[in-house]
Amino acid sequence: MTITIIGTGLIGGSMALALKKKGFVQHVIGVDANKIHEQKALELKLVDEILPLEDAVKKSDIVVLAIPVSACVTLLPQVLDYVDNQVVIDAGSTKSGLLDAVKDHPKRKRYVPTHPMWGTEFSGPEAALEDAFAGKATVICSKEDCDEEAVKLVEELYRALSMYLVYMNAQDHDVHVAYISHISHITSFALANTVLEKEREEDAIFELASAGFESTVRLAKSNPDMWVPIFRQNRENVLDVLNEHITQLRKFKMCLEKENYDYLRELIENANKIKKVLNRK
Amino acid sequence: MTITIIGTGLIGGSMALALKKKGFVQHVIGVDANKIHEQKALELKLVDEILPLEDAVKKSDIVVLAIPVSACVTLLPQVLDYVDNQVVIDAGSTKSGLLDAVKDHPKRKRYVPTHPMWGTEFSGPEAALEDAFAGKATVICSKEDCDEEAVKLVEELYRALSMYLVYMNAQDHDVHVAYISHISHITSFALANTVLEKEREEDAIFELASAGFESTVRLAKSNPDMWVPIFRQNRENVLDVLNEHITQLRKFKMCLEKENYDYLRELIENANKIKKVLNRK
Repeated sequence: MTITIIGTGLIGGSMALALKKKGFVQHVIGVDANKIHEQKALELKLVDEILPLEDAVKKSDIVVLAIPVSACVTLLPQVLDYVDNQVVIDAGSTKSGLLDAVKDHPKRKRYVPTHPMWGTEFSGPEAALEDAFAGKATVICSKEDCDEEAVKLVEELYRALSMYLVYMNAQDHDVHVAYISHISHITSFALANTVLEKEREEDAIFELASAGFESTVRLAKSNPDMWVPIFRQNRENVLDVLNEHITQLRKFKMCLEKENYDYLRELIENANKIKKVLNRK
Repeated sequence: MTITIIGTGLIGGSMALALKKKGFVQHVIGVDANKIHEQKALELKLVDEILPLEDAVKKSDIVVLAIPVSACVTLLPQVLDYVDNQVVIDAGSTKSGLLDAVKDHPKRKRYVPTHPMWGTEFSGPEAALEDAFAGKATVICSKEDCDEEAVKLVEELYRALSMYLVYMNAQDHDVHVAYISHISHITSFALANTVLEKEREEDAIFELASAGFESTVRLAKSNPDMWVPIFRQNRENVLDVLNEHITQLRKFKMCLEKENYDYLRELIENANKIKKVLNRK
């Protein structure tokens, strides 16, 4: 099986490494708008060859778009234009906008919208990891709108990565990721800015940064090229969650202002319930 | 050397294990208001014996208070009442209130205020870990108000734990920990409440919870017995940082509302600067 990876960065590169290691694909073609990334991907053996987009698609069984969601909206219809019988997937963090962009495309049924729920705060070919994805979820959206045999191949691909599959429609997906991924990134960016703003004159502070701080600001290292398009595409859901989050923070503020420590305890006890949610996974 | 650990939980228990392993102490006495914790600490060999407070202090070279900061404010003066020539330290996350509580105590100079910057979201004797603390910072506050030889012994203790030492006054300490520890906990509690509030009717969501989500809500599992007193003691600094954090979050909200994606990118690029801060450690 031959696969084309469009976007030879963290996600595309890691997927290429894992699929080859598992024997799911024998040949990997790389396509990247960034020529330096293409060369780096060849050097790191993430891909076997670099081809122009059309040649790559024609030569492949599967095409994976692993690029920022804004670029995906533009490129996906073009990729489908080149498709004969290939299966196309994306790995984007938002889905509704993408599905709108191809809803009337004659090859729509060859495209299976997917979201493998794995990533790190790093990006680019050098960030690719061989043993990524295992044990994590992949969302497959609106599979009833895809060719059955295309969905089957995609399910096999993600099972080869040892991922488990979750099915939902694009709208539900976009709401859920706003809660469990996008808001975490916003709070982390905002927390980093809070600390940088207030502590700019201070060095001592950073010697103290504890493990708790590092885990909450880790995501603040994430790349704006990826995240601005995600927030833009999922704007309404993210705003909804962000408003709720600010409301929740204001409750803590109110407790401190009014010195209502009983209510503060209640808020923390409620937050503790996240334990059983995380343990259920 | 004999040490008394008051509060045989995560911090006290881990400290006892490490100091014994390193040969810094030969005998550990446990004191805990919770009888179940005392028995558990004996069972787990965190401590060698359990004694009443006064007997424990009299028999020790060093006394460590590893209890919630509110309990510490009450208990520290009592401990100092029993002190002859022992050295007393605490491991609390706030310092100004504690120092106020003992500022006129005749044994004040035997007390060295310290804050080892390590912890996990778990608590109790079962949470104690043998290899904790190494490579992390300990803050020693206002050492000029302590007996010189007492400070020296405390420095040796923390060096035995392979920690590095940072010196600052209690007021600066309390400001800094508000930024790099207390606010992370509030955002994490609030994030957990946001998700629990909005997603209570939904199970699917939790199947999706990604690594990013888990790292930002990890701290939301933290114990209110510890955290309500910390927020209370450090109320003004925490409120100050929380207000700044809400301001920073509102900037993200404004960008999305007004669809100002250039400014959104600036905010994220600024947050990315946390990289060099974290890497400097």
